[in-house]
Amino acid sequence: MDLIIKNGTVVTASDTFVADIGVLNGRISAIADAIEADSRTKIIDAAGRLVMPGGVDVHTHLDTPGLLADTEDDFLSGTIAAAHGGTTSIINFCPQIKGSGLLESLAEHRRRADPKAVIDFALHSIVSDPSERTLAELSSLPGEGVTSFKVFMAYKGDTMVDDGTLIRVLDEAQANGALVMVHAENGEAVEFLRDRFAGEGKLSPRYHALSRPPRVEAEATARAIALAELASASIYIVHVSCGEALEEVIRGKRRGVDVHAETCAHYLHITDAVFDTPGFEGGKYVFTPPPRGSHQPKLIWDALARGDLEVVSSDHAPYNFVGGKDIGRDDFRQIPNGAPGIEERMTLVWQGVANGQLSPNRFVDLVATTPAKIFGLYPCKGTIAVGSDADLVIWNPDITRRLTRDDLHSAVDYTMFEGMEVLGAPETVISRGDVIVQGGAFTGATGRGRYIHRGTVSTSRPARQETQRS
Amino acid sequence: MDLIIKNGTVVTASDTFVADIGVLNGRISAIADAIEADSRTKIIDAAGRLVMPGGVDVHTHLDTPGLLADTEDDFLSGTIAAAHGGTTSIINFCPQIKGSGLLESLAEHRRRADPKAVIDFALHSIVSDPSERTLAELSSLPGEGVTSFKVFMAYKGDTMVDDGTLIRVLDEAQANGALVMVHAENGEAVEFLRDRFAGEGKLSPRYHALSRPPRVEAEATARAIALAELASASIYIVHVSCGEALEEVIRGKRRGVDVHAETCAHYLHITDAVFDTPGFEGGKYVFTPPPRGSHQPKLIWDALARGDLEVVSSDHAPYNFVGGKDIGRDDFRQIPNGAPGIEERMTLVWQGVANGQLSPNRFVDLVATTPAKIFGLYPCKGTIAVGSDADLVIWNPDITRRLTRDDLHSAVDYTMFEGMEVLGAPETVISRGDVIVQGGAFTGATGRGRYIHRGTVSTSRPARQETQRS
Amino acid sequence: MDLIIKNGTVVTASDTFVADIGVLNGRISAIADAIEADSRTKIIDAAGRLVMPGGVDVHTHLDTPGLLADTEDDFLSGTIAAAHGGTTSIINFCPQIKGSGLLESLAEHRRRADPKAVIDFALHSIVSDPSERTLAELSSLPGEGVTSFKVFMAYKGDTMVDDGTLIRVLDEAQANGALVMVHAENGEAVEFLRDRFAGEGKLSPRYHALSRPPRVEAEATARAIALAELASASIYIVHVSCGEALEEVIRGKRRGVDVHAETCAHYLHITDAVFDTPGFEGGKYVFTPPPRGSHQPKLIWDALARGDLEVVSSDHAPYNFVGGKDIGRDDFRQIPNGAPGIEERMTLVWQGVANGQLSPNRFVDLVATTPAKIFGLYPCKGTIAVGSDADLVIWNPDITRRLTRDDLHSAVDYTMFEGMEVLGAPETVISRGDVIVQGGAFTGATGRGRYIHRGTVSTSRPARQETQRS
Amino acid sequence: MDLIIKNGTVVTASDTFVADIGVLNGRISAIADAIEADSRTKIIDAAGRLVMPGGVDVHTHLDTPGLLADTEDDFLSGTIAAAHGGTTSIINFCPQIKGSGLLESLAEHRRRADPKAVIDFALHSIVSDPSERTLAELSSLPGEGVTSFKVFMAYKGDTMVDDGTLIRVLDEAQANGALVMVHAENGEAVEFLRDRFAGEGKLSPRYHALSRPPRVEAEATARAIALAELASASIYIVHVSCGEALEEVIRGKRRGVDVHAETCAHYLHITDAVFDTPGFEGGKYVFTPPPRGSHQPKLIWDALARGDLEVVSSDHAPYNFVGGKDIGRDDFRQIPNGAPGIEERMTLVWQGVANGQLSPNRFVDLVATTPAKIFGLYPCKGTIAVGSDADLVIWNPDITRRLTRDDLHSAVDYTMFEGMEVLGAPETVISRGDVIVQGGAFTGATGRGRYIHRGTVSTSRPARQETQRS
Repeated sequence: MDLIIKNGTVVTASDTFVADIGVLNGRISAIADAIEADSRTKIIDAAGRLVMPGGVDVHTHLDTPGLLADTEDDFLSGTIAAAHGGTTSIINFCPQIKGSGLLESLAEHRRRADPKAVIDFALHSIVSDPSERTLAELSSLPGEGVTSFKVFMAYKGDTMVDDGTLIRVLDEAQANGALVMVHAENGEAVEFLRDRFAGEGKLSPRYHALSRPPRVEAEATARAIALAELASASIYIVHVSCGEALEEVIRGKRRGVDVHAETCAHYLHITDAVFDTPGFEGGKYVFTPPPRGSHQPKLIWDALARGDLEVVSSDHAPYNFVGGKDIGRDDFRQIPNGAPGIEERMTLVWQGVANGQLSPNRFVDLVATTPAKIFGLYPCKGTIAVGSDADLVIWNPDITRRLTRDDLHSAVDYTMFEGMEVLGAPETVISRGDVIVQGGAFTGATGRGRYIHRGTVSTSRPARQETQRS
Repeated sequence: MDLIIKNGTVVTASDTFVADIGVLNGRISAIADAIEADSRTKIIDAAGRLVMPGGVDVHTHLDTPGLLADTEDDFLSGTIAAAHGGTTSIINFCPQIKGSGLLESLAEHRRRADPKAVIDFALHSIVSDPSERTLAELSSLPGEGVTSFKVFMAYKGDTMVDDGTLIRVLDEAQANGALVMVHAENGEAVEFLRDRFAGEGKLSPRYHALSRPPRVEAEATARAIALAELASASIYIVHVSCGEALEEVIRGKRRGVDVHAETCAHYLHITDAVFDTPGFEGGKYVFTPPPRGSHQPKLIWDALARGDLEVVSSDHAPYNFVGGKDIGRDDFRQIPNGAPGIEERMTLVWQGVANGQLSPNRFVDLVATTPAKIFGLYPCKGTIAVGSDADLVIWNPDITRRLTRDDLHSAVDYTMFEGMEVLGAPETVISRGDVIVQGGAFTGATGRGRYIHRGTVSTSRPARQETQRS
Repeated sequence: MDLIIKNGTVVTASDTFVADIGVLNGRISAIADAIEADSRTKIIDAAGRLVMPGGVDVHTHLDTPGLLADTEDDFLSGTIAAAHGGTTSIINFCPQIKGSGLLESLAEHRRRADPKAVIDFALHSIVSDPSERTLAELSSLPGEGVTSFKVFMAYKGDTMVDDGTLIRVLDEAQANGALVMVHAENGEAVEFLRDRFAGEGKLSPRYHALSRPPRVEAEATARAIALAELASASIYIVHVSCGEALEEVIRGKRRGVDVHAETCAHYLHITDAVFDTPGFEGGKYVFTPPPRGSHQPKLIWDALARGDLEVVSSDHAPYNFVGGKDIGRDDFRQIPNGAPGIEERMTLVWQGVANGQLSPNRFVDLVATTPAKIFGLYPCKGTIAVGSDADLVIWNPDITRRLTRDDLHSAVDYTMFEGMEVLGAPETVISRGDVIVQGGAFTGATGRGRYIHRGTVSTSRPARQETQRS
Repeated sequence: MDLIIKNGTVVTASDTFVADIGVLNGRISAIADAIEADSRTKIIDAAGRLVMPGGVDVHTHLDTPGLLADTEDDFLSGTIAAAHGGTTSIINFCPQIKGSGLLESLAEHRRRADPKAVIDFALHSIVSDPSERTLAELSSLPGEGVTSFKVFMAYKGDTMVDDGTLIRVLDEAQANGALVMVHAENGEAVEFLRDRFAGEGKLSPRYHALSRPPRVEAEATARAIALAELASASIYIVHVSCGEALEEVIRGKRRGVDVHAETCAHYLHITDAVFDTPGFEGGKYVFTPPPRGSHQPKLIWDALARGDLEVVSSDHAPYNFVGGKDIGRDDFRQIPNGAPGIEERMTLVWQGVANGQLSPNRFVDLVATTPAKIFGLYPCKGTIAVGSDADLVIWNPDITRRLTRDDLHSAVDYTMFEGMEVLGAPETVISRGDVIVQGGAFTGATGRGRYIHRGTVSTSRPARQETQRS
């Protein structure tokens, strides 16, 4: 064996047990009562620690140009931050460069990512310029290992597509073994509300949230699911933030639509109370969907526990506060939209374990196993099983610490969780058998991360039925 | 008194009692145990008959040019047919002439209607060319007595508007005391399904229905209600045809949206079994939303009884079968879309009374009182009360007859209910005190019908709340 | 005519119009633009006032012996109080005297009521001693004009019956054209919670409410409706107090059960905040179901507006505070359970009209028309129509007053609404053409009220189906 | 190692991978790419086979005396049949002997089981004689390894308890780390319906089903969950058979009640069509809840896939057809109630994998892992993990066979699935490292099964809240 992690408490999405884990050639080779080392074996003692699959964050925006600003992290700083948080795989969104094709945009994105990433990564394609040529390209993406496409129902005039495009993308994706991810907000309604507030001179960050109330999200969620149903396609709803949208996900599942849904770690902890802070502090929390009312986080936690939400991602979209967010000091519409969280994610979800809302197994399922399964990374990623990649995090459940910007590794200049006291922390992070974080320090090499060529997604599309129940 | 109807059983939306009704100057002047006649009084004996308010049909398409054909009835044949069916007021849809303003279109429509109508009528404006100029005109419509606007979410490339237009129209309407009526089907999804079927060579009338399944209607219904909620506006959903859309109406009501909904008489009796008939017979039943599955009519009847649906209209849109519908014999997309029913409507709903599903009072409420209240015709129209117009129908509940084209009065060449045996019939129809139908004959004068200048609609819009529940 | 009420605005459950009302021999004889008086005609000018049907209160407990105390009002003080509040008919609960039959109990109750009542009254039978003999008597009650039976699912050891009795009573009632009213709380669960609180020394009035939380009511409501469904019987749920129970009523209606439900006026205004008052003040509010959380009244108002609740009754059960309620000063279980409200009822509901939550027509429907229809009093009672009894209330919608015990007429020593400012008041109350309240004074005669021999209830029981949907 | 299973595809509730499994001292000692054998190691080649945890059947009635007959299987024939079906642990119901205490009844049951069982077993206590003494004994049961108690809401006059008993048992169980299992049918309503049918001479087996329609089950399910909510206790609903009861489980979960629910294998395959067979064939299918309508199995399958139902058990209650069931040939009320299925269970659920309704992982979760977790058998039983008991089944997914009585091993004289063609079969069954079934033959020893002393159940009871949401 190259590496043996001894005496740890192994936690998978289903099981918890004490065992040694043996790693050979970057893969898990044995899980046993006791594994014998040889002279060249590196040994890590994990007694009293939890050994879990490295996290899988399927929603990140590294090195992404935007309308109002570019995200701060490239694939180096971004994946180092991820690793420090316990995450060993990400799927980054590859934006369609306006005027370019999807494949061309992918190639460009790979050029940026390949030399820098320190953990393994895959890519989703964003369809933002839905010409006939673009739609024709969709069937080529799985051949490039890209088996998920994202479409926006919001951001009128920018990435927003109409329902006709959405249903065609759903149909194409399903036909090609790919999965459509949807940003579900009614962009037209948002525009109406933004205009109204702007017309009334209401331009502080709070109005970002008020122009995107829960019904805006719930409506689009319902619509996306209906279109998937009509196209007999699977669908994945990103960043569900409120009970109203969740209700639509549940209704869809109950009538048999193959709908999956994630939330993001910040919806578990941040509410619209952040806009009560004086000054422009609220600008740090301008992300979409926006912070919700104080009754909402419990609804989201419950749905995670119950299984109605299946994934927690970060939606890491880091913009500096100084020189970035504050461009919109006088007009919320000018604030770059998004927030950092790639490193904080797993710790934020772990607080649910600390509070008794989730079991450790459910934690693993939400942050690693299910995202890996849904997006075609499994079984290489997302679990601890013989044959899987040795992507592991050794977690100390007993440490208390206080989150602060200075201890984090993203290039961005703030964390939304400054000063928050948390229980539990990743101590050692292993990627394909390499220890890449140890004792708070990054010990890996730039560019060591590999692009993951994903397989087609085996969601269960029923044979297309000509006659829907009428 | 000019007219006394003696000994009838008076039925209103709430009450049933035997009394004489005295009419003076076209209005109801007295309701009493016994009313004394004088020498000039006309007397009608209604013993053993029900005396009900004349019907109010708020959804008709007389004299309407269409993409594929024009409707067969002008205001003369159409209102004569209505009168024979017991209906004494209609609200016709005034289409926006492409390139013309709403006011100009109204003026043109009045020119066609005024000399011909034999019963009183009002108009709704259809907003189908939503330029800024059009939106600016909306506030002028109530001054013309037009306090309802219709918007289509279907018919891509023709009358379909996007959500941004819809929410703006909702906002304008509410600000001006008007009500928005919505045709709720997702036009983009329909287009996708039509293209798919066409691509597969599936072009018979059945595919009209299969390209507009219940989810297409339910999705748009949910969306329209959400947009009304976001705009703090009232909304009226036309022609609800299925349990799926009904469910969305009920959900909207339960969360406090001021949503009203109608069904049409044909959804109570016609199902997609009509497409099992050989040949092109199914072409007669190409209307939108289409005939639904056999389990659906019961859901609609129950909702009428329970109050979740409030109005039954005809959606009378008559196209001849020969030389009209049959243009689309080889391609359902070429079939003029709509069906006749202005005369059959009240009788079709009365079958629910005959079967014990509705009380006579509920019948009156559905076909006369509530439509009159919602659209600003009440108290002149829609009830039997002192001061109301003497628009009355004397109904024989004990007659059995068989519906057939030859006995009906629309200019169209077929009825969807050919051969159907029904119980109950209107015997005498009175408009503003004039007996206009008696013994099966029309006894009124061409052009006697008056345009009804409607008042603003007093729907209860809550004071706009800046902060929706987040 | 004996009496003409001139120029008033007549309000029925459906209509609003200005007219004269002519009364002859205690019945409404004419409703007209103008009615001519003769020399013996009494004339009341109602210009600027609303003329509405006298109220129908179907849930009162006059002259009722209880376990812990007797109610304070006999049929004299109780019906005088009712009349002052605008109510002209009541249906009182006739308790089954332990060891006596139902008929014998009715006869005894009539002996107490007949010489005293000042308004017309009917009776419901309470089935509290469900022997075989009692069940056998049920079929005789309709012959006595008693077409509704009440059963308690609460009050273990006293009136509580088991599900076997309940389903048999439902079956008997349906077979005999009668309607079962159910007090829906799970008596066993209440007992468990009471014992637990008592064991912990928690004995203040607040624990009355905490031992009967909403789930206790919702569970029993669901169960009662299920049993009605299984017996193919109609059912009436008394005093729905909370959204949880309301939800069960709605679910029952939607699956086709013939379920009707009332709330009581106090649930519209009183919440569990009353238990925050120091001392024993909370004891005044010990009624069942208990005061609910502050979010509940809106749910009840909305259900009244929407139609999911159909009746507002008083559940008038008056016990003096001094010498009555205060027996339980140290133990909530000793507090006589119930509260007064027969006079306040209509005014309390009218506040919903004043606030825009209900139309005047809906008000009439809730407090008069629908209760009369459900319980077989209609068309004699509950409406303004030719032929109906001239039971009328002339209402001044513009008066503001402050409710206070000294202005009320029940024999009880407090009102729960002391000091509450209200809009609107009954000014003149007429029973069968007799003016019985005028200018704040009672002008009727003791014992003038008549027993109403009710007809069988025509609820729509479907033909019994052997095969329920399985 | 004592035993190595080589090259199999290991399937757990979460993972699927190819590996060797090494067994030492009856426990799983290693899972690895390759495990080295020594001279004494037994080797089984599982290439091309699935290696799954042995099944855990938590609902069996071996050696159980009944009112109408005793079950046919004792612990020898019953556990041999279980083993042949792939099941390696059962939890049998220990009935309370009338007049005896729970502990005494347990001791007697152990005397019957210990010498015979061939697989490991645990016991649930049935509380059927709820005296104060019985309730007092509940707290002693966990000390005996019995951490679940069953209560019946049906079977009036026999095991049925009232709501007061149920809520007290829930409270006691929760206080002692135990879980209450509830048979949820309204026994009073069943009695009413049985009497009615009997009175009408309707006595064929079909009336067994008609006297227990879905509402009877749904009502009791809702009630049991409500009582658990009021007692802040966890609850487990046995044998959910229909969408109506399932709906109540889902509602309970969504409002935060810790409710778990199982279905049984026969509800996935048998419908009330069985009663259409002529003669007394239907008698074979008299079990409770009864066979449901043809639309129901899909609802149950979907709930298993979605997670709303968590366990599939057998409810094995075998009565011979000849000389047993047929006692009730002329009166369904005399038919011993229950049916065999302990051996068929896993195969019946596997058909869902064969049809694409369930993943193999979900199969394992439903038949082994989750039942083991809920009832305190995990991690010894229910999974494949280092340290767990080597209870394994080697499954051939490719075999097709036809179920028939002669191939099965229960002592009963029929199977409900006679002639049914199924895919997949257990080939080798291993209990604590012992191969007990191989090549269709039982190779274990009588009495080798051990009693499992279960730990307390760690369901998550929230701190008791005095103030429920009011």
